[in-house]
Amino acid sequence: MERRDPEGLTGDELRSRPACIVINPDLAEGLDGLRPGDDVLVLFWFHRSEGYALRVHPRGDPTYPMRGVFATRSPRRPNPIGATVAHILRIEGNVLEVIGLDAWDGSPVLDIKPYAPTFDRPQAEG
Amino acid sequence: MERRDPEGLTGDELRSRPACIVINPDLAEGLDGLRPGDDVLVLFWFHRSEGYALRVHPRGDPTYPMRGVFATRSPRRPNPIGATVAHILRIEGNVLEVIGLDAWDGSPVLDIKPYAPTFDRPQAEG
Repeated sequence: MERRDPEGLTGDELRSRPACIVINPDLAEGLDGLRPGDDVLVLFWFHRSEGYALRVHPRGDPTYPMRGVFATRSPRRPNPIGATVAHILRIEGNVLEVIGLDAWDGSPVLDIKPYAPTFDRPQAEG
Repeated sequence: MERRDPEGLTGDELRSRPACIVINPDLAEGLDGLRPGDDVLVLFWFHRSEGYALRVHPRGDPTYPMRGVFATRSPRRPNPIGATVAHILRIEGNVLEVIGLDAWDGSPVLDIKPYAPTFDRPQAEG
């Protein structure tokens, strides 16, 4: 059993669909310098998540043995912040159209950062 | 001029030194399943950052032209959350010893997630 969003979409399906990130218009100037084709790290709030569990089944699938929440990407975490790298398709004013975003519709976006191998890639991958 | 921490260390120097992440002991069970050799995405609070600027010089270096804060990794952002991938060297109870962490000493850690190419790697890199 895989975790699905309220519309029944799996993570793979969410990531394969374009999605719009709407920035507070007062902050739109902060997007200056981002371009279609750029990859961004998107931090968002798991707004539908309630409470947390220290041990969970990975991917919400009870056939996986339980493990510590910090060893999973479960949304039910002490600070329910999600992180996904997404790819910018288009920018119009305060709206970013992206693909690859594994977030449920309506998730409040906390931050957008340019993907940077120095910070975002394991050292072993250089 | 590169940004340096209060001890005068550059980001490269911070990333090349082992660092300890101390988890609230009540949450230590959440580390179960992480192992030395794993890569983790660490989210932390830029606790020394005050306010934000919508346009900044990348890397705090005035020789770079200004750009929107969301096109930089500047700590002076609307939600001052930092993100770095680090590599686990050792785990002892509620303490993770890691390398590769580009965070100033004392930064409150908000979350730890296992590095997962599905979420953390640009789609073009597969």
